[in-house]
Amino acid sequence: MIDSVLLLEGAMSVEKLQRYREQMRTELDKVVDFWQKYSHDTQYGGFFTCIGKDGKIYDELKYVWLQGRQVWMYCRLYRTMERFNKPEILEAAKSGGAFLRRFARIPNSGSPWKCAFCLTRDGKALKVQRTIFSECFYVMAMDELARVTGDKDMQAEAAQMMDQLVHWVRVDPSGLGKPQLSGDTPVCSMAVPMMLLCLVQQLTEARSGEEVDKYREVGGWCVKQILQHLQRGGTAILESVSSEGKELPGCEGRLQNPGHALEAGWFLLQYGLENGDQELQRTAVDKFMEIPFLTGWDKEHGGLLYFLDVDGYCPTQLEWSMKLWWPHCEALIAYLMAYSHTKEPALLDRFSQVYDYTFSHFSDAENGEWFGYLTQQGKVTLDFKGGPFKGENVNRLEKGLVRNHDRLQT
Amino acid sequence: MIDSVLLLEGAMSVEKLQRYREQMRTELDKVVDFWQKYSHDTQYGGFFTCIGKDGKIYDELKYVWLQGRQVWMYCRLYRTMERFNKPEILEAAKSGGAFLRRFARIPNSGSPWKCAFCLTRDGKALKVQRTIFSECFYVMAMDELARVTGDKDMQAEAAQMMDQLVHWVRVDPSGLGKPQLSGDTPVCSMAVPMMLLCLVQQLTEARSGEEVDKYREVGGWCVKQILQHLQRGGTAILESVSSEGKELPGCEGRLQNPGHALEAGWFLLQYGLENGDQELQRTAVDKFMEIPFLTGWDKEHGGLLYFLDVDGYCPTQLEWSMKLWWPHCEALIAYLMAYSHTKEPALLDRFSQVYDYTFSHFSDAENGEWFGYLTQQGKVTLDFKGGPFKGENVNRLEKGLVRNHDRLQT
Repeated sequence: MIDSVLLLEGAMSVEKLQRYREQMRTELDKVVDFWQKYSHDTQYGGFFTCIGKDGKIYDELKYVWLQGRQVWMYCRLYRTMERFNKPEILEAAKSGGAFLRRFARIPNSGSPWKCAFCLTRDGKALKVQRTIFSECFYVMAMDELARVTGDKDMQAEAAQMMDQLVHWVRVDPSGLGKPQLSGDTPVCSMAVPMMLLCLVQQLTEARSGEEVDKYREVGGWCVKQILQHLQRGGTAILESVSSEGKELPGCEGRLQNPGHALEAGWFLLQYGLENGDQELQRTAVDKFMEIPFLTGWDKEHGGLLYFLDVDGYCPTQLEWSMKLWWPHCEALIAYLMAYSHTKEPALLDRFSQVYDYTFSHFSDAENGEWFGYLTQQGKVTLDFKGGPFKGENVNRLEKGLVRNHDRLQT
Repeated sequence: MIDSVLLLEGAMSVEKLQRYREQMRTELDKVVDFWQKYSHDTQYGGFFTCIGKDGKIYDELKYVWLQGRQVWMYCRLYRTMERFNKPEILEAAKSGGAFLRRFARIPNSGSPWKCAFCLTRDGKALKVQRTIFSECFYVMAMDELARVTGDKDMQAEAAQMMDQLVHWVRVDPSGLGKPQLSGDTPVCSMAVPMMLLCLVQQLTEARSGEEVDKYREVGGWCVKQILQHLQRGGTAILESVSSEGKELPGCEGRLQNPGHALEAGWFLLQYGLENGDQELQRTAVDKFMEIPFLTGWDKEHGGLLYFLDVDGYCPTQLEWSMKLWWPHCEALIAYLMAYSHTKEPALLDRFSQVYDYTFSHFSDAENGEWFGYLTQQGKVTLDFKGGPFKGENVNRLEKGLVRNHDRLQT
């Protein structure tokens, strides 16, 4: 691949590609080391998630999204990359999985599947969200852990929770606990079908037969839902649309989230590749990867803005102009995957541009791992490595790059 | 007063005080003009609350906190300042009050008093919070409007809602809709007794007899609760404490909110003055006004930081280092009130320091009103004048300065 890159793209040298690969390999090792060293709770099981810049635990709360992601990451690394196929990684994943199975679900919440958002160190539920995401990360974790351990009960449990998620999303959301209000008309958030599509890909990967056939219909539905967010004659990707797939009034309707659009982009591209849908592949690249870059890349300071209003009003989210680690990870995954399949040099340029910003701004050379939150100007403004929404950084990056690591290695 | 200031404080000239007074008078006029010109919804009643920098409505949603505050502000201006005693101001207040009475409360929410957080333009409930604040601003609005109109039913309604608020806070919070979780031990947030104390002051002002006697006990309870937030041997004011008045573990327990501490400071000072409690007056000034300045004032860039961790960890709130308009308003009110009663020159210096930062950074000379949100470096980063949590700026400033406007005018 490196030779063909060189022919296609004079500006991109073999040395540069090799340097990327080496740097990402080193970065991945440092990140995994960081979480192995600091996050394991040997007393209660599971993982600490609030970890300061130098590895110090600044809060013992355990956020469920991040428990699930870390289990998934460890298993994925163990299963797919030889240098991480080590017993201590598997043991840590099992400990996290056991903690989740024992404590994440909330008894007496009206559904046996509703999970907490945040637990105390010893596993008592502290906060619950009226969304599906804790449960989604639970499914990711259990299914991947089941792949490593061969535990069929665990795999079945992931599948049962998936059924519940699909029911909440497509049939009846009342079990999520959101009160019914007369002015609160149904809104489709792109995050929901994106996340479900990610789960479909998880649950069907390298499997066949009846047990996965039912997910194919769900996957098709998710794709159709995601495509509804391409609005204004194909010129904008809007985070929320009406249940009829139309633009909503006000700030909510005009909101753009470039990181989500890029993430949707590579989910769609992957789906399009798996299903041989060339039109979907082009839409993924030309719309979901192109539009967020054109609108979201900060031409003055570099980096991707967090939120934008499609009509140029100021978003009401206080953090709209900040640079967060995860949209940059999604962009790297998206452009590398898109380049790998299309061989269009412009996509490798994009990758390179995002790469240079990302690795020079988020990576912490001193203590390892990444900072998560920068000002618009690129200064670190929250210096912890783990917080309520930020877990092991590698997870985001890894989600695509480990799955697609051959693309930098062939 | 100006003469005595001059004697006490050489650095503070009569000219400077006169300039402050003139500038604040001009600012108040411009702010009231802005909201009269742009916020009134002549079709559905009530007020638009999402207003751009130049007065353009960028979202038709109506936030209930801000409806209540604007009614209160118009009434207070009408009732206490001659130049605002104009029929159009009274009419606007009545329109806002009628809109609130008709639409703010949520039918079938399990309590006849639970209010929405956000309404559609035509008054349908869109969002509800599991807190008491929409209801508090409802009480503020109704009581002040009743004072202007003499409507006894409305005054009684405010009192009934106040009874419900006290019940939720002191007896049983279950009507607020928060799920009971095993790890979610009760937490005392300083915002709650602060807000109730503010209501007690509203409901008892210039009234006597049985109808207000019951609030005196509530006021004393609020003061006691607020004082529990003075922790670590009187060196720190913590936003959240346990129900036994002890420090809580983790980020929540270490959180400092300098704007809230200053706001509590002037509520306590006012209570101490009304009740002849000199020890409380000193605590208000020496602790609740001093500590947040020492910890919260940004020595490098000026202005008050939004959140801080008492042990120096990075707060997890993404906006922690931003400069918001309202803590600066609370600081101005607090230091002016404290100076006025103590005549300590250092407090006038504080007022002056906060004043210079505030008026040079938040006020918009071009279109009137104030910006609400600056970066740590002092650059406007959200440029709207009204948003989900920011209403007429004057309200915050006014709450103290109109109530205490004689302090700059004597």
